[in-house]
Amino acid sequence: MNTISNRRSIRKYSGREVPDALLRELLSKAERTPTMGNLQLYSVVITRDSEMKGRLAPAHFNQPMVENAAAVLTFCADFHRTTLWAENRKGTPGYDNFLSFLNAATDALLYCQTFTNLAEAEGIGTCFLGTTIYNPRPIIELLRLPKLVMPVATLTIGWPDEAPTQPDRLPVESILHEETYTDYTTESIDQYYKVKESLEENKHFVEMNHTETLAQVFTDIRYKKSDNEAMSANLIDTLRQQGFIP
Amino acid sequence: MNTISNRRSIRKYSGREVPDALLRELLSKAERTPTMGNLQLYSVVITRDSEMKGRLAPAHFNQPMVENAAAVLTFCADFHRTTLWAENRKGTPGYDNFLSFLNAATDALLYCQTFTNLAEAEGIGTCFLGTTIYNPRPIIELLRLPKLVMPVATLTIGWPDEAPTQPDRLPVESILHEETYTDYTTESIDQYYKVKESLEENKHFVEMNHTETLAQVFTDIRYKKSDNEAMSANLIDTLRQQGFIP
Repeated sequence: MNTISNRRSIRKYSGREVPDALLRELLSKAERTPTMGNLQLYSVVITRDSEMKGRLAPAHFNQPMVENAAAVLTFCADFHRTTLWAENRKGTPGYDNFLSFLNAATDALLYCQTFTNLAEAEGIGTCFLGTTIYNPRPIIELLRLPKLVMPVATLTIGWPDEAPTQPDRLPVESILHEETYTDYTTESIDQYYKVKESLEENKHFVEMNHTETLAQVFTDIRYKKSDNEAMSANLIDTLRQQGFIP
Repeated sequence: MNTISNRRSIRKYSGREVPDALLRELLSKAERTPTMGNLQLYSVVITRDSEMKGRLAPAHFNQPMVENAAAVLTFCADFHRTTLWAENRKGTPGYDNFLSFLNAATDALLYCQTFTNLAEAEGIGTCFLGTTIYNPRPIIELLRLPKLVMPVATLTIGWPDEAPTQPDRLPVESILHEETYTDYTTESIDQYYKVKESLEENKHFVEMNHTETLAQVFTDIRYKKSDNEAMSANLIDTLRQQGFIP
């Protein structure tokens, strides 16, 4: 687990294969992750085929790691398998609702992160693609996901072909609260974000984006209110399509 | 990371403290987990005070590990800190929407799972409480969580005072799909659930619950449709209260 301290996301991979046996061994080990009622409310679709990677890429805004990766793993919240099992066993499953989506998404995300930690301990490079929930419909169509299956995370994996510098993180005090949530003040925000804002790479990032502050890069260029609202509507529609919202 | 293969949830803890320095070191290491735009959209409220544990317990259906734990960690999806930072830096944050909730929940859950892996590698026992999203309102009130902060996971931690047998898991083939989702058939469901259904402890679990099949324990006794629907409505209302749904 000491690899975690040195980790960084890897977006460029060598052409070398990640052997299927190793991938399955790690995905199997990761099954030890906590899961609701031991139901394992997740599935993983493994994309290795070049043509399929090419067709997945646009759903991930054509980020180059999709086509470059040895494999693309789409982690799905899955209540379909459990529902089929129950229907075949005289049960009365009732998982076509929002709580059940969040339960299954939780299972899938925890599982995904244990897999990431295990893969990185083997020297495999990974990149987590947050784009999965921005534009889930083409992913659902391409991977032929049935109702009660919803993609929630994508991981590109491969042997590293780059060694990027490690990005900063906030001081741990800024994310911890003792007994109750202590609200932030102008002063504590200044203190917690001071190092981040003073780093050369972040100053460069501000310049590149032509904003005045670092925060503005995130609120005015990336992750904008109008985009978030449009994607929220799309996400809710897709959850309805997949049967998780009545 | 080999501890993952031997892990099991630990619900009984010795009285021995988990030193604060160790806890902070692990929570700090876990910050290396992937996070959206390096924004770290999470906070953790640490409960050590006995009275606070006692007041949290009912929100977790009085599961005994809450009061018994050395510490209870509530992992929250948090867009409040980032929003304050942006407001103080001439940004125009727009995170009062459902996509932003799911982005922050993803960050919080991935972070929670790396922390779990790290803590278990140190010999600390953990139990993930799925109850957090069943009944979030009393947790929000007790921990005084502001708008744009939503609890998504709770972990009880402490030094193990039990050595339970390891529960079964489905064969990895049952959760993996190559290129596209291969739908399950009556035969594949039978095959994948055969070992689980044949285990003595699961047969005993069926007897205890007076059902005919193992699946019925989950659909007819636990995780029932009517409960899921009531809790879904409550969860959506709470997301609205916390400002994540307009």
